[in-house]
Amino acid sequence: MLVLHHAWRSSASRRVRLCLEEKGLAYEGHVVNLEAMEHHSPEYLKINPNGVIPALIHDGRALYESGTICEYLDEVFPNPPLSPDNAYDRASMRNWVRHVDALIGNLIVFNWRHSLQKVAEKWTDEELAAHLKKIPSKERQEAWLRVARRPYTEEERAAARAKLVVDLLDRMESTLTATAWLAGSRYTIADIAVVPFVKRIDEEIAPEEVDAKHHPGVAEWWAKIQARPAFARANIGPFVGS
Amino acid sequence: MLVLHHAWRSSASRRVRLCLEEKGLAYEGHVVNLEAMEHHSPEYLKINPNGVIPALIHDGRALYESGTICEYLDEVFPNPPLSPDNAYDRASMRNWVRHVDALIGNLIVFNWRHSLQKVAEKWTDEELAAHLKKIPSKERQEAWLRVARRPYTEEERAAARAKLVVDLLDRMESTLTATAWLAGSRYTIADIAVVPFVKRIDEEIAPEEVDAKHHPGVAEWWAKIQARPAFARANIGPFVGS
Repeated sequence: MLVLHHAWRSSASRRVRLCLEEKGLAYEGHVVNLEAMEHHSPEYLKINPNGVIPALIHDGRALYESGTICEYLDEVFPNPPLSPDNAYDRASMRNWVRHVDALIGNLIVFNWRHSLQKVAEKWTDEELAAHLKKIPSKERQEAWLRVARRPYTEEERAAARAKLVVDLLDRMESTLTATAWLAGSRYTIADIAVVPFVKRIDEEIAPEEVDAKHHPGVAEWWAKIQARPAFARANIGPFVGS
Repeated sequence: MLVLHHAWRSSASRRVRLCLEEKGLAYEGHVVNLEAMEHHSPEYLKINPNGVIPALIHDGRALYESGTICEYLDEVFPNPPLSPDNAYDRASMRNWVRHVDALIGNLIVFNWRHSLQKVAEKWTDEELAAHLKKIPSKERQEAWLRVARRPYTEEERAAARAKLVVDLLDRMESTLTATAWLAGSRYTIADIAVVPFVKRIDEEIAPEEVDAKHHPGVAEWWAKIQARPAFARANIGPFVGS
């Protein structure tokens, strides 16, 4: 029995849904209300002490951190495999996940203004202080404070965009000129980890960069990703208005 | 053939040395001169594009990120095993590594003033700007800028200390009341990942917290860690004056 606590537009949730769909695993989905800060409630913190989504409950035991959940699913449900068949490529896969995880701040600069900012900017100072106190991570406290009181500037968005182009798309391109997928010849959790980022870059952040002229390898990879049946089933829809 | 690019006092390097020694693996060590910023040289960036230590070369192929290197070593040299024998505990192990990795900023606040700060504070503005330009990670750029021009304050050190006590020692304590080691009944990469942190907390940051009164489970764990032959061989010596 698999239960997924997730949100439709959360990047980390999208990774786990994609992994579940690639494996053909049925699961019960619980949508977490981020605007109501359900992920910082005492009940949710018992599932994930870090207070972020997603979390997966498998036979009553809680798992969290999307990269860790995907590797767990691949170990417990090995077919079809979503890891490379050799140790060196598995190391590359894990470094891709770590690398992309470290870029999430650049996505938040774009993502949160579509949703969480609209809620947070209406809080009184007292409400804001009360909310911030419940957030375990310093980085997430800062992100909530920013959208509530000092929304990210156009300059900051430009810096985040540049970072995503150089540290994600350029690095992907250089890998994809040598191999079919990010961690070798097989589609793996490394590719899954990157999907929610490329989706947002292609949709809003820098669509002109995801094309045959600027990043031909990425463009081809992205076409293959979107053609996979699991991509449609994982419901990685448009960010705005969905 | 294993070649390790490392530094004696680097936390991530200490993890990999510990892992190599637990496995009984011989390796050739290359000490990277951090003060001279050798890890940001074009030659080193070819080995690790992230410009941090350690990096391991195995049969001519480069690996980086300490957590990834340790898992690789455990897969390629499986005896003695340094991962749990079941998928759920392996997920816990990976989450420990992720969790501790995210706390490194709190260690830097204490560690860098013993060494890198003494070098960086002497740079001219031109030298500082030139150095910063070569550093791939924004977080590390910020850390160098701080030690060069605006050393961390006593207040910041107090906040970092509190964070390490709550997010590391308290969390370890709560785990170690249930299991012998951090990821279950076996000593694993989760324990290895934490060692360099507890070493620094015990030595300088909050020694009074690593005792039977405040964190009895951690104190017992720490005694067992220090008694392991691999701990001595990995040369995790005192930070100051070593």
